[in-house]
Amino acid sequence: MAAQAQVITCKAAVAWEPNKPLVIEDVQVAPPQAGEVRVKVLFTALCHTDAYTWSGKDPEGLFPCILGHEAAGIVESVGEGVTEVQPGDHVIPCYQAECGECKFCKSGKTNLCGKVRLATGVGVMLNDRKSRFSINGKPIYHFMGTSTFSQYTVVHDVSVAKIDPIAPLEKVCLLGCGVPTGKPLSPPLMCSQVILLPLSTSILVLWESSYALGSNLNILIPDLVPTPESLGAVWNTAKVEPGSIVAVFGLGTVGLAVAEGAKAAGASRIIGIDIDSKKFDRAKSFGVTEFINPKDHEKPIQQVIVDLTDGGVDYSFECIGNVSVMRAALECCHKGWGTSVIVGVAASGQEISTRPFQLVTGRVWKGTAFGGFKSRSQVPWLVDKYMKKEIKVDEYVTHNMTLADINKAFDLMHDGVVIDLTE
Amino acid sequence: MAAQAQVITCKAAVAWEPNKPLVIEDVQVAPPQAGEVRVKVLFTALCHTDAYTWSGKDPEGLFPCILGHEAAGIVESVGEGVTEVQPGDHVIPCYQAECGECKFCKSGKTNLCGKVRLATGVGVMLNDRKSRFSINGKPIYHFMGTSTFSQYTVVHDVSVAKIDPIAPLEKVCLLGCGVPTGKPLSPPLMCSQVILLPLSTSILVLWESSYALGSNLNILIPDLVPTPESLGAVWNTAKVEPGSIVAVFGLGTVGLAVAEGAKAAGASRIIGIDIDSKKFDRAKSFGVTEFINPKDHEKPIQQVIVDLTDGGVDYSFECIGNVSVMRAALECCHKGWGTSVIVGVAASGQEISTRPFQLVTGRVWKGTAFGGFKSRSQVPWLVDKYMKKEIKVDEYVTHNMTLADINKAFDLMHDGVVIDLTE
Repeated sequence: MAAQAQVITCKAAVAWEPNKPLVIEDVQVAPPQAGEVRVKVLFTALCHTDAYTWSGKDPEGLFPCILGHEAAGIVESVGEGVTEVQPGDHVIPCYQAECGECKFCKSGKTNLCGKVRLATGVGVMLNDRKSRFSINGKPIYHFMGTSTFSQYTVVHDVSVAKIDPIAPLEKVCLLGCGVPTGKPLSPPLMCSQVILLPLSTSILVLWESSYALGSNLNILIPDLVPTPESLGAVWNTAKVEPGSIVAVFGLGTVGLAVAEGAKAAGASRIIGIDIDSKKFDRAKSFGVTEFINPKDHEKPIQQVIVDLTDGGVDYSFECIGNVSVMRAALECCHKGWGTSVIVGVAASGQEISTRPFQLVTGRVWKGTAFGGFKSRSQVPWLVDKYMKKEIKVDEYVTHNMTLADINKAFDLMHDGVVIDLTE
Repeated sequence: MAAQAQVITCKAAVAWEPNKPLVIEDVQVAPPQAGEVRVKVLFTALCHTDAYTWSGKDPEGLFPCILGHEAAGIVESVGEGVTEVQPGDHVIPCYQAECGECKFCKSGKTNLCGKVRLATGVGVMLNDRKSRFSINGKPIYHFMGTSTFSQYTVVHDVSVAKIDPIAPLEKVCLLGCGVPTGKPLSPPLMCSQVILLPLSTSILVLWESSYALGSNLNILIPDLVPTPESLGAVWNTAKVEPGSIVAVFGLGTVGLAVAEGAKAAGASRIIGIDIDSKKFDRAKSFGVTEFINPKDHEKPIQQVIVDLTDGGVDYSFECIGNVSVMRAALECCHKGWGTSVIVGVAASGQEISTRPFQLVTGRVWKGTAFGGFKSRSQVPWLVDKYMKKEIKVDEYVTHNMTLADINKAFDLMHDGVVIDLTE
């Protein structure tokens, strides 16, 4: 255990102040304490949640900190009492913990977990309420319990999922997002498609050979990457059954992944709604069977859909973040049972509304708590599904860069096209 | 079958025009046709839905008509092909049909039924799209497929529930309401507590002895009577489990019945919220364990409840009809799983609203489709529960009167105290 007692000095991207470029620094990473795991981070992606905190708009944001929460790596050492992972295990840090023991985990009703939230919410570790990161003795805060913009990070053992060692880490790191956020008080924001390759070249031999730095990653969709959120919205939150009629509002990446999930669930009709008819062709390959452009109709879109479906759809998904569309998505649902799930993220301060009679006659309004997946128990399952080619991941990756270029990566993410039905 | 071919002339209260007193008339009731049942109505209650249509505000209202939909009686004759009931059976006409064959019935997700809606919605019978009621050859429209303000009525066989013949009809007639409405496009309105005894004295011997005209009925709560709606909201819509924490907004009869249902479901804490602290004493006997008066707190009531319950309640019920309270009821729910059910009826045109983030973090917003009970299959079950003293009915009856006094009965209903948290 001697190696575990060592402080590791490595490179990390430090956010010293809100809205100032991140700085690559030499950071000291303390050994893991009881219930903690130190992870060598091999690949990380960027996410709008990182950008949101970095911008200073996050009321919980603390500086200086090390951002990043969507990554994959290998366990370097473990603290006292850690039994579920050991050095060498391939893991995905999970910003949503899963302790299995708290009120949330035991409820059987949610993927949220309360165990480490009070510590991760204030940028420290639970054991001593201190950070494991420092620069010349000055503490640097953790972020979302993950802080993956560092070559090494320390996470709680309840926040790390052990995965199949043959899974390509530079792909499956994306499956670390979409698992519910550990920051439920912040606006839910989707992950981007930019993957950062590690600055370090001292990756394990297994990875050196297969996934050398600079290997080409597919560039396909210049949009957000919410695969698990979207799939989870269909599978866990709505629980779409075979034969269902589904409406997907917005055919950006979120909507495409929802359509993909609905197709996998056996939906008989998947109606895509978007104001850009050009999107229909691409959407077909994700499972969309019919297309409606609201601009082609004088009637409200919900009425058009009700008329087309003998009373409404069984499930609808709002994948845009527009509160008016959220209302239409609810109201196009079938009386008696139609369920509408909000996947898109509305602008701050906006509200949804409807007549209560819509609910009284049997419609149900839900949101998806980041896909509803349990982190430690279901991330490995998602990885397996990816390995069996049952879910897409590669197709969402658009760029790869090194940690040194992290500020450019944020610029790329901000330039990304976000699908907007209301434009 | 000769008797069945006869037209019966009997007394009925006819609504000739909106907002004009009902008139007791001699009405001809044609024999039941294929798939129809003629019922001798022994007891009927008044409901605000009757008053709503009578007022002329119901866009679907047709005149002249025979109102009434919450009753109990005995089958007098049946038409061709009717197999599930026969003359002499004790029945409750159900304004919500249950055919077992339509899209709704087969869905397994709702108690709504689509089979006879197109006919009952326009005041006629499905078979020939005509009425069975007439006065000297002039047709009188049916109402909600029931028209129970008549000594005899004709209903569809899918709209009549056969019940235990030992159940007291003058009590269990109340269980005919709360079963989902056959008028889903009209505002859902609760039933009143006024029971009309039949004008006719020619009731069957069984009933003459036990339930002579003028027998005393209990007078207890001067309020609305939504027992099945409320119980159904708890059991069918929310599916409250043992140990749950429940919040009930509004401690009128609706809220009391919800509390009763939650207690029966094994809720560990039932928090009653009302601006009238005097209601707590009575509420205790219905299962309310804690009381909060919003006037005693400066913080929003949802925050008060979240603080009291370690994060929020598992289930909340809005039993008032106030859209602001509906929002509070949603927002006092526990993150991750809290479910809020709208039971109260909002004023026309009002809307509910909240931030979508409330749903995205796992709360669910529902309404109760009139308790969610299946009519023909579940009304007999409700009657059995009443007979086993597992649900209260007697306690909600406040007056009994004869059909001749039906206009006075409406006056009494309108004078009833409706609980209002916002007064």
